[in-house]
Amino acid sequence: MNQGVEWALHCCVNMAWTPAGEAISSAKLAELHKLPPAYLNKQLQALVRAGILDSVSGPKGGFQLSRRPDKITVLDVVLAIEGRDLAFRCDGILKNGPGGDMGEDYTRSCLISQAMRHAELAWRTELARQNVAGIAQSIERRFPDARPDTLAQLLGTDNRPES
Amino acid sequence: MNQGVEWALHCCVNMAWTPAGEAISSAKLAELHKLPPAYLNKQLQALVRAGILDSVSGPKGGFQLSRRPDKITVLDVVLAIEGRDLAFRCDGILKNGPGGDMGEDYTRSCLISQAMRHAELAWRTELARQNVAGIAQSIERRFPDARPDTLAQLLGTDNRPES
Repeated sequence: MNQGVEWALHCCVNMAWTPAGEAISSAKLAELHKLPPAYLNKQLQALVRAGILDSVSGPKGGFQLSRRPDKITVLDVVLAIEGRDLAFRCDGILKNGPGGDMGEDYTRSCLISQAMRHAELAWRTELARQNVAGIAQSIERRFPDARPDTLAQLLGTDNRPES
Repeated sequence: MNQGVEWALHCCVNMAWTPAGEAISSAKLAELHKLPPAYLNKQLQALVRAGILDSVSGPKGGFQLSRRPDKITVLDVVLAIEGRDLAFRCDGILKNGPGGDMGEDYTRSCLISQAMRHAELAWRTELARQNVAGIAQSIERRFPDARPDTLAQLLGTDNRPES
């Protein structure tokens, strides 16, 4: 699995901690966990395309969650980065075997395909049970210092005019 | 996921249908579902390394299940082909973030890592619930013609002396 999944989830958690209406720059998100900015930016753009983040332009620009963090599941983020296809792609090889029927959709009816799909559904169900708000609260409880405690620390001052 | 997973599972099913004590050649296994022989052979060797198949040499040589098919789970086969590592590899990036503690094992304690691991456990649990014997019986019930019905059809005659 793409390591961007881990980065994207932590970025969403940091954005859940950002005051409402404030965007956070990709440079600041990268700096918070010492991530490579250009590659992180690609993951953030994938989250924008999936409708999880909004991209805000201008001097106070950056990224912000597009909806409440309790409405963004871990599954949403994982599928945004990894793509929505199932990991197991059935080629329906029973059709080439004894008694194979070219008219049969073995990708649906083959019991091996079903077993693999069933397991992937269990995986997705688990990931859908967790949301960004819950993860953010759990991290905050377990590691109180992990939440940046000042606006300046979270939002940075590099791209902002002095107030 | 490697398409060898689908091939390996179907090969195990075909071997579950093979009379006890008889090996089936990789050429015959490839022919049964029109698979590329050299690449299939690599998957079969991975099953041997994982202790799922025995490799039998000699004129009646080939592969056979190393134990009863109800003792081989779908998970055993998937991990033999895909490797035993978890798909989500946590780099513990909280250690580089605010309040990060270089002595903390975030790969275990980070709530994101835990959520991902929990989901993967659900996936593995589902795959471990199914075994090769059950899959073979289900395929046979759903597609009675998929089971090669003669010994010659299953074992081939290409590498065997006339009896």
